[in-house]
Amino acid sequence: MRVDGVPYRTIWLAEDGWSVDIIDQTRLPWEWRVARLASMEAAAEAIRSMRVRGAPLIGATAAYGLCLALRADASDAALERAHDQLLATRPTAVNLRWALEAMRERLGRLPPAERVEAAYAQASEIAEGEVETCRWIGDHGLALIEAAHRAKGEGPVNVLTHCNAGWLACVDWGTALAPIYRAHDAGIPVHVWVDETRPRNQGAALTAWELGRHGVPHTLVADNAGGHLMQHGRVDLCLVGTDRTTRSGDVANKIGTYLKALAAREAQVPFYVALPGSTIDWTVADGLAEVPIEERSQVEVTHISGRARDGLVSSVAIAPEGTPAVNPAFDITPASLVTALVTERGVCAASEAGLAGLYPERSAS
Amino acid sequence: MRVDGVPYRTIWLAEDGWSVDIIDQTRLPWEWRVARLASMEAAAEAIRSMRVRGAPLIGATAAYGLCLALRADASDAALERAHDQLLATRPTAVNLRWALEAMRERLGRLPPAERVEAAYAQASEIAEGEVETCRWIGDHGLALIEAAHRAKGEGPVNVLTHCNAGWLACVDWGTALAPIYRAHDAGIPVHVWVDETRPRNQGAALTAWELGRHGVPHTLVADNAGGHLMQHGRVDLCLVGTDRTTRSGDVANKIGTYLKALAAREAQVPFYVALPGSTIDWTVADGLAEVPIEERSQVEVTHISGRARDGLVSSVAIAPEGTPAVNPAFDITPASLVTALVTERGVCAASEAGLAGLYPERSAS
Repeated sequence: MRVDGVPYRTIWLAEDGWSVDIIDQTRLPWEWRVARLASMEAAAEAIRSMRVRGAPLIGATAAYGLCLALRADASDAALERAHDQLLATRPTAVNLRWALEAMRERLGRLPPAERVEAAYAQASEIAEGEVETCRWIGDHGLALIEAAHRAKGEGPVNVLTHCNAGWLACVDWGTALAPIYRAHDAGIPVHVWVDETRPRNQGAALTAWELGRHGVPHTLVADNAGGHLMQHGRVDLCLVGTDRTTRSGDVANKIGTYLKALAAREAQVPFYVALPGSTIDWTVADGLAEVPIEERSQVEVTHISGRARDGLVSSVAIAPEGTPAVNPAFDITPASLVTALVTERGVCAASEAGLAGLYPERSAS
Repeated sequence: MRVDGVPYRTIWLAEDGWSVDIIDQTRLPWEWRVARLASMEAAAEAIRSMRVRGAPLIGATAAYGLCLALRADASDAALERAHDQLLATRPTAVNLRWALEAMRERLGRLPPAERVEAAYAQASEIAEGEVETCRWIGDHGLALIEAAHRAKGEGPVNVLTHCNAGWLACVDWGTALAPIYRAHDAGIPVHVWVDETRPRNQGAALTAWELGRHGVPHTLVADNAGGHLMQHGRVDLCLVGTDRTTRSGDVANKIGTYLKALAAREAQVPFYVALPGSTIDWTVADGLAEVPIEERSQVEVTHISGRARDGLVSSVAIAPEGTPAVNPAFDITPASLVTALVTERGVCAASEAGLAGLYPERSAS
């Protein structure tokens, strides 16, 4: 998407034709810095330290990391070593594993001398594939925003979103934000309510940043405000991403998503979840019973990081020293609260039948 | 309640017998400072700058402020002037007006020479009355916690609360926290989930502080976490305060309360609201349609204040510069989501009939 008028992706081949540029997301929203990755080690560090984040972007970065490794040494042993080192950067990331295994399988069958060129081609394919997936999600979601706009008659379509499921988490477009960018670019007036998304404030820091830089009207709200906004007719639809969707349509997403889904049902506001098919977990049906919820550090709750008056990013305590905290990172929104799922293959009911209709080849397994 | 073993109220007559001591709440939770009010002007400043906060405490402080004014000049003109100046400190506070009018009416009928002594007696009555009201709320709410404890059989009763409706907002005990202190002091194991309560973080700063100092087990959570906790059976009941309750039982309370009430209904967790009868607005029935919601400064959303590493309280920005925000301070929880109201007169249904049963003399008006 655009950053102050200039089109960007989150990762691209540098002008030298072999090293890789990324937007250093640990600096956002306070500083715009492009980092150059010139070695596999640099790519691994970028993933580990979350300079790149979001499943699709992590996968693409790992793919390019393998290219950089093979450039230095294209032997079988080096291929294995690079695969293992990159895989270890974020052990639970599904796309990371998928991208690395796809690369290893195809490249392992080639003679070493042909591997570097093939690796770059494949990494580019992976990145383009992610862009294509998000573009399709945007296309299908755009129809929902258009329908809301027609139904409303006048004024912007007010979309509430939670956390960051934007282009920064992908290679371009995003998942939940893709339909919003498509609508905005198509001239449909759209305004986004951005949940700040405590405790890590990805809404305030990343979603507000990327919408602002692209020029999409938006307003930041405390996570507490969404119910009130919906009670008063100030939200036309909710649109969020997901980290994992069960085959029955239960949605694991950033903590707090569930509360917004409850408020949306109560106010008869449609609640949509955008996702690439790759994040559907066909092995799991009951999200509440079967999806483990990561508990993260207490410090994320007791302290908040931001930019101090001196311009430096620093952290302040918001609770008395020693206050215990718990920090579940995700919650489960049951399928019954989800109006529809928006995927790269179309929009479907949040149900086993709905998902099977779009992904017959996977649901059969 | 106790602060590290020592019993305190939020306001008390100083050892000199005429000046008034308060806990300077603008310093909490970072610094414990008792401030001495030795003039009406000091009392007015304490209210205006929120060194004292919470409707009952503001009323009591204003009453003592009038004592201090009369000590300097007990004439009719001085009484009027002090009444007006104190009333202007927080124009919308109901208890402030009530306390000042009650004082003016009774003292105005006395000869000036008798006013000072009568004023101190009346201010003490007002403060004691607030304590008594909260103690009764605690008594009635205690029965609900006891019942939850019996039903549960083992382990602590897990109570979720939002914002600060504790003794810091009152003279002692608190409203929502009064039953919790009563239960804790009675040896019933109780554990409190403390919502941080963005944007002003009164939960993290004040509720966590007062529970911690009194020794009540508690855990801080992001506002986003409550739904997840309830889905997983980790909350036995919710207990919150209210700024205004309509005669039909709709509850205006800190923004985000409504979302917790929705989650409680969904998980079949009882949702109780504690209130003194003085906060019932008998003139209003439909909370959503008739209660205006204050919109506060954007800065409370875009910036967060806390203690920096250097020990100083400072503010950090959490969103890109210029990000627009809206900041509704309260929301409405419809009576249908409230399991019961806990008042100084007993527990009742959140309905016109329920409230009329407890307050027949007021509902008739």
